Amino acid sequence: MEDKALIQEAIKSQGEVVRRLKTEKASKEQIDEEVAKLLQLKAQLGGDDGKKQFVLKTPKGTRDYSPKQMAIREKVFNTIISCFKRHGAETIDTPVFELKETLTGKYGEDSKLIYDLKDQGGELLSLRYDLTVPFARYLAMSKITNIKRYHIAKVYRRDNPAMTRGRYREFYQCDFDIAGQYDAMIPDAECLKIVHEILSELELGDFRIKVNDRRILDGMFAVCGVPDDKFRTICSTVDKLDKMSWEEVKKEMVGEKGLSEDVADQIGVYVAMQGGMDLAESLLQDQRLCGNKQANAGLQDIKQLFSYLQILRVTDKVVFDLSLARGLDYYTGIIYEAVLTQAGVVAVPPEGQNNAAGESVSVGSVAGGGRYDGLVGMFDPKGRKVPCVGVSIGIERIFSIMEQKAEASAEKIRTTEVQVMVASAQKNLLEERLKLVTELWNAGIKAELMYKKNPKLLSQLQHCEESGIPLVAILGEQELKDGVVKLRVVATREEVDVSRLDLIHEIRSRTQQEEQ
Amino acid sequence: MEDKALIQEAIKSQGEVVRRLKTEKASKEQIDEEVAKLLQLKAQLGGDDGKKQFVLKTPKGTRDYSPKQMAIREKVFNTIISCFKRHGAETIDTPVFELKETLTGKYGEDSKLIYDLKDQGGELLSLRYDLTVPFARYLAMSKITNIKRYHIAKVYRRDNPAMTRGRYREFYQCDFDIAGQYDAMIPDAECLKIVHEILSELELGDFRIKVNDRRILDGMFAVCGVPDDKFRTICSTVDKLDKMSWEEVKKEMVGEKGLSEDVADQIGVYVAMQGGMDLAESLLQDQRLCGNKQANAGLQDIKQLFSYLQILRVTDKVVFDLSLARGLDYYTGIIYEAVLTQAGVVAVPPEGQNNAAGESVSVGSVAGGGRYDGLVGMFDPKGRKVPCVGVSIGIERIFSIMEQKAEASAEKIRTTEVQVMVASAQKNLLEERLKLVTELWNAGIKAELMYKKNPKLLSQLQHCEESGIPLVAILGEQELKDGVVKLRVVATREEVDVSRLDLIHEIRSRTQQEEQ
Repeated sequence: MEDKALIQEAIKSQGEVVRRLKTEKASKEQIDEEVAKLLQLKAQLGGDDGKKQFVLKTPKGTRDYSPKQMAIREKVFNTIISCFKRHGAETIDTPVFELKETLTGKYGEDSKLIYDLKDQGGELLSLRYDLTVPFARYLAMSKITNIKRYHIAKVYRRDNPAMTRGRYREFYQCDFDIAGQYDAMIPDAECLKIVHEILSELELGDFRIKVNDRRILDGMFAVCGVPDDKFRTICSTVDKLDKMSWEEVKKEMVGEKGLSEDVADQIGVYVAMQGGMDLAESLLQDQRLCGNKQANAGLQDIKQLFSYLQILRVTDKVVFDLSLARGLDYYTGIIYEAVLTQAGVVAVPPEGQNNAAGESVSVGSVAGGGRYDGLVGMFDPKGRKVPCVGVSIGIERIFSIMEQKAEASAEKIRTTEVQVMVASAQKNLLEERLKLVTELWNAGIKAELMYKKNPKLLSQLQHCEESGIPLVAILGEQELKDGVVKLRVVATREEVDVSRLDLIHEIRSRTQQEEQ
Repeated sequence: MEDKALIQEAIKSQGEVVRRLKTEKASKEQIDEEVAKLLQLKAQLGGDDGKKQFVLKTPKGTRDYSPKQMAIREKVFNTIISCFKRHGAETIDTPVFELKETLTGKYGEDSKLIYDLKDQGGELLSLRYDLTVPFARYLAMSKITNIKRYHIAKVYRRDNPAMTRGRYREFYQCDFDIAGQYDAMIPDAECLKIVHEILSELELGDFRIKVNDRRILDGMFAVCGVPDDKFRTICSTVDKLDKMSWEEVKKEMVGEKGLSEDVADQIGVYVAMQGGMDLAESLLQDQRLCGNKQANAGLQDIKQLFSYLQILRVTDKVVFDLSLARGLDYYTGIIYEAVLTQAGVVAVPPEGQNNAAGESVSVGSVAGGGRYDGLVGMFDPKGRKVPCVGVSIGIERIFSIMEQKAEASAEKIRTTEVQVMVASAQKNLLEERLKLVTELWNAGIKAELMYKKNPKLLSQLQHCEESGIPLVAILGEQELKDGVVKLRVVATREEVDVSRLDLIHEIRSRTQQEEQ
């Protein structure tokens, strides 16, 4: 009774919150959220309220995957996992939540997007925000200094969802990382090779992989005259060049971040540069830039990287791009990001798209990563460093594209792998159907039957058409007497009597081509 | 600054909590938990405190999976998924959290074990407790009335972990369910067939599948004279018969739950009964029990079920057991549970094991499920029912057993699938190694190389031994001149020169048997 009074009071004050937001003309999203809370409170009162107002939905920014979506997801995952395995990676898994402090201080401003669990009288926990920090925590905790691993799992961000563009609050990451003290740029080059292989195999259209180095960015900022304490914030402004024109970015640098116009213009010259090995070589001639130790080391590495990329045969897609500046704090060297360059693969273009240069339209990043040599040391009690480099495949955006492609194409996606339906045309044959389907299951054949005593033949055949089952094994009195089964090919409607003894062999040989 | 003062205050009071628990001689677990909280608070003060006390661990009741554990997990999942697919199941996925109200009122007393998310100014969310309630929510929301689906995903319970026995706070469930209005006991029988197939294929030793029916239990309680409002609580006492002797269970019924001794004794007669079709038939002659409509319907269904199980050839493992009483509220008909019956497969026996009957020692449930015809209707705005039956495979316990078996056996578990290592015996051949490994990757061969400019041949060969790579492709000046590669079989140390043109074919044919 106490509880009920409390809830009723909460409903009252929540109602006022909603009313206030409405009169203040708050955003629809904000109002919706508060209304949802109000409805939940009302639902808690349940039947007492007369009518139960139950909200039948998944949480904001999340979704269910239907069988069809899962079939697409499985296909994409198989391509990606095959590639990771081809490159000799192991896999690990970590819990979906970590101690809150494990995530503290790793994501800069984005930390506000971390989901915390309620304190229910135990440890303070948060849902993982990415797979990289748990990986570093795992390495430090298990004292592993060498590993090549992939990890495919969901991560959580209380971001503004934009679900039509494949941006969710719960989403998959597919990470591949190489940890260990190795010779420069060899593992880094392999990561780019992997991105190249995956994006090629998924047939998402043409793509570019932009490469830069944190040290080149920092060196560039230094020689252009950016004060040390503004490196990070100017870096995050440069990061917006894929969505904003240079004029807008410059305006932010000068107006909001307080750079002088001259300094901004100097940065502008550098961030317009794109190239390959040639650009690295010509920048190594830039006395001013190379006077900076960091920039010099970065450029040497980029040059080395491109020499390996040539041997790995991926330079056709890789661009050294001085405007690339990935957001995360933990990168220490090479950084990269892959973008699809063919317009039209995605129906909805990225928000605020402003294609100043007039070149190919970017549909957003589908992979990214870089080198982070300091992260594991943050977890190690003695600060021992384990150098790491890795890449994360932006799988949700890829799903969105694949889903749209699947919808646009005539090809039907199967959601099961059933090879044969055990059916009957006559009544009272359930037990015979059960007997036959048992034989098939026990022989490893993928088979099903309708869960009815006397299903109609038509509805059994319709089920096959709908779900793409290629064969039907039809039983009748006559077939039972003759020791045969009528095997029907759904696509051609051809029917042939097959001896019970040969049936399994016959089904196998007829479905083999299918499955290759 | 305000924050810091708050934290320092929290540290002070938390320190008192710990001191009090210690003087009160609380359980080690409880103290550890409070100490962990204290350390976390101190960590929040960070450097300010002089020394940072960082806790390097995963949250209580959770664990990382190492590559070796993942290899075992993958093998088990493949067996289970193959079985689900053989039976024509699709798969779906749902978010890891649900609206809190979605879970409300579904788990009875166990609701206290649900993890809630912190209210960060949005919807009230909870981590999923099982996959069944999200499945029912999905069906109602998507208006699906017919589906056969599997779902393998992690669920969360704030239970007391017992990790050596495979009981975690974060753990996998593998669920297979059939939803739809069908003829009685056909899908139910298929669920039992699936349990039989999976447990047989995993080779976990002998097992039993106990079957009962909620309606038989309720009818039995009614005719024995249990008051209506005590059905659920007596049911949960009966459920303890797998861990406690009848004497202990009876004591709880009479002492704690207030049944008369006579009523308890009557229940005692029934719950000692085990059998098959024969028991169902003889109970159908029990005038008193069958006078109860519910019990009668349940017994008819059990009889029908066993007739199908005979055709499906699984009666060797299935027992009709009147003591089986699964805990969850939502079951409405048939219920079942599989237990391993061979002692010794698990090192640590279940807690409180008390084997009164002196028969085979149970090592705990490894699968369970039943019929729940009312759950989807709880979510449908118009209360439309979708009958469901399903089974959940207790995968964590199976992992524990498989891990112990793997450790006990001499067989080495591979954590990668690499077929060939590209190596060199001489210096300055990195670029040649990169060239060759690129050829192999592009041909789909699983290959790797060491990320060093000049690795020692011995360390390259050692890596192959350790990680079970069967072949080494060795490059040297001579081989390059001759256009060949020295292919070494790691197991036999046999070496043969293979032309570069034939290499891919040669590797494929040598690794085919391996992979069959």
